[in-house]
Amino acid sequence: MQQQPPRVVVIGGGFAGLEAVRGLADAAVRVTLVDRANHHLFQPLLYQVATAGMAAPSIAMPLRRLLRRQRNAEVLMAEVAGIDADARRVTLAGGGSLDYDHLVVAAGAAHAYFGNDHWARYAPGLKTLDDALAIRRRILLAFECAEREHDAAARAHWLHFVVIGGGATGVELAGTLAEIARHTLAHEFRHFDAGSARVVLVEAGPRILAGYPEPLSDAARRQLESLGVEVRLDSPVTDVDAQGVALGESGRIDARTILWAAGVAASPLGSCLPGGRDRAGRVRVEPDLSLPGHPEISVAGDLATLEQDGEPVPGVAAAAKQMGAHVARAIRARLEGRAPPPFRYRDYGSMATIGRGRAIAVIAGRRLTGALAWWVWLFAHVLFLAGFRNRIVVLVDWAWAYVSWRRNARIILGAAPRAGTDEADAG
Amino acid sequence: MQQQPPRVVVIGGGFAGLEAVRGLADAAVRVTLVDRANHHLFQPLLYQVATAGMAAPSIAMPLRRLLRRQRNAEVLMAEVAGIDADARRVTLAGGGSLDYDHLVVAAGAAHAYFGNDHWARYAPGLKTLDDALAIRRRILLAFECAEREHDAAARAHWLHFVVIGGGATGVELAGTLAEIARHTLAHEFRHFDAGSARVVLVEAGPRILAGYPEPLSDAARRQLESLGVEVRLDSPVTDVDAQGVALGESGRIDARTILWAAGVAASPLGSCLPGGRDRAGRVRVEPDLSLPGHPEISVAGDLATLEQDGEPVPGVAAAAKQMGAHVARAIRARLEGRAPPPFRYRDYGSMATIGRGRAIAVIAGRRLTGALAWWVWLFAHVLFLAGFRNRIVVLVDWAWAYVSWRRNARIILGAAPRAGTDEADAG
Repeated sequence: MQQQPPRVVVIGGGFAGLEAVRGLADAAVRVTLVDRANHHLFQPLLYQVATAGMAAPSIAMPLRRLLRRQRNAEVLMAEVAGIDADARRVTLAGGGSLDYDHLVVAAGAAHAYFGNDHWARYAPGLKTLDDALAIRRRILLAFECAEREHDAAARAHWLHFVVIGGGATGVELAGTLAEIARHTLAHEFRHFDAGSARVVLVEAGPRILAGYPEPLSDAARRQLESLGVEVRLDSPVTDVDAQGVALGESGRIDARTILWAAGVAASPLGSCLPGGRDRAGRVRVEPDLSLPGHPEISVAGDLATLEQDGEPVPGVAAAAKQMGAHVARAIRARLEGRAPPPFRYRDYGSMATIGRGRAIAVIAGRRLTGALAWWVWLFAHVLFLAGFRNRIVVLVDWAWAYVSWRRNARIILGAAPRAGTDEADAG
Repeated sequence: MQQQPPRVVVIGGGFAGLEAVRGLADAAVRVTLVDRANHHLFQPLLYQVATAGMAAPSIAMPLRRLLRRQRNAEVLMAEVAGIDADARRVTLAGGGSLDYDHLVVAAGAAHAYFGNDHWARYAPGLKTLDDALAIRRRILLAFECAEREHDAAARAHWLHFVVIGGGATGVELAGTLAEIARHTLAHEFRHFDAGSARVVLVEAGPRILAGYPEPLSDAARRQLESLGVEVRLDSPVTDVDAQGVALGESGRIDARTILWAAGVAASPLGSCLPGGRDRAGRVRVEPDLSLPGHPEISVAGDLATLEQDGEPVPGVAAAAKQMGAHVARAIRARLEGRAPPPFRYRDYGSMATIGRGRAIAVIAGRRLTGALAWWVWLFAHVLFLAGFRNRIVVLVDWAWAYVSWRRNARIILGAAPRAGTDEADAG
């Protein structure tokens, strides 16, 4: 009787997990990919769904579709409840379990409120497609509520937007909000000028996009300000409620719409694993990305923390993909009795977009800002979408949006709001 | 002091309401369009969103966008709570009201369970984008649950689909479900053959698409059967629950996924109006579409019922558009002191699609079936989308889907299902 090939269970169908599965296509293993969503998400464009620029399916692809031809892989849509490293078993929420010979944990990260979970209700974060649709609904409803409001002060309150957190997501959201107000919605309302909307980006630290060289952070701030965004630096948020944001001694900003882009914490699945974790809950791994003492378990993507040349490997899509590919190589090496090589992150560059024609980038050590950086960003992201079916659709959407300032997905899903209530706050 | 121009309030931004607003573009009136959604919906393709063929924004367009350049029109996203015909006032849910000189009620219809509203939980209907996304989620989750299920009988149960109602929507849904199972999902599951899914279309009457000549109904049934759909005629549904559908003496069909396409009832707003209504709640109108005794109120679209040459004007998009345009003409005539002409519906043809290369149509009295009818349907619907920004995107989506059998929007939104629970039933 033939022996069954070893079973590899991969948790998470993001960049790292998907790359790990694909890297095992020719290996003599059975792979099971478990994800609670049915789709792989192109996370770098999630803010476009949240700001009504793209439809949800444009940046998501069914995992089954992506892995259809990989005969040694199966996909299971399920939530992982726990990991028993001693028994080598993954348990699923709602019953059932999966035994493994090799485990890849690539469950990613979620937004976090650092002990202030009650802020979530007033300041939703952005990690999933559902998050994006909820934020889209909130943004669009704010303008609709302003149109229904007769009182000038109450109307202005609806037209105040605060984005908390000056990382890439916060910068993208704030810049796009300003563009929507000043361009997309121009001439569409009869009782106010959408361009009068106020967008404030609040950052606790001394500069935005702190992962970039300081001159680029300054350039990004200036580009945001040229779009009309107020940037408040050195302003840690001390409270959030339905009416606005408190900034400790720096005062308070009234706003009906508050978005959270400040904190990221590793998936709680990290705590199911033996071994050490950093302050954000990320799992410390060996140089080959395996868990100390558990060579049969690898951790990849945003859930893993690893230093390279004294610097942490950044939590970006490119690093996650490289980690996923490395984990597949390491598993194949172990199957063949070889020692897996250490992981090395190759930084091909990084970039952040601010708005149409506005971005910053570091490509092969060269610093770019403004229109050139933006074209590089646009080109890279269209290329990055390769493999996705919607490449053409994405291009058409973008090309059209570029010419017309339109947002092609300005559709509010869910019930109608009632004037005078906080229903819009419930998102 | 200059007199304010008369105020026209239009309730409903569907085909009829939108056409009425547009027809008043050059009139000396102020128009307020009230809708509880922020978008106009291209209803004939709603089944495509429900069956994951198109993204929600592809068939919807913000009403503000459509009316941006019409300076005498404003859009209010709000739900109408009541109509006081004597005071000439529309009250809004959540407070506020609108006084009118002319009122156009084009609130459309919704699906109805005819006294069995508890069936809604098990057999969702399709009228709005939210309905479509809930149905999409249910269909896709059924296949995911089947993949997780180990018991053969329970798995088969997940792969049974029943569509109730043999009108255009029911036929479209059943045909597309069969295509999804046999083509789109082929080779994507490891524990069953998606092509083994069973799709049953249940119709209470003796034939499907009863509005068409009998030979076309028969052709449609044969085309559905060639796709693998079981068509059960003369089978009124007597009960619906989480496990299946009871057909009285004809027995029972077990199924975990049941869709409702059987009943339509006029918007409850019809009951706010004085005068008579038919059994489905539609408002009886004068030949010029005004309300008897209330020339300042017009009713258009699916909410109105009117006979022409002994036949009721059908509840189709073309009739709704023509009614909306007529109402605008009638209001302009009244403003100029002329008597409004009677409405005449012009039937340019009608068509129903069944699946790729399968349809029936009556065009200028000629009957078409099969591939030719389908090409006519496809061409007409692409043309019909004119004015929508997404025409190119729609064409790309369709062209690609035609070549590849793909469904481009197979994205489940909402939380993960848990095996063994009925969570999928909760939609």
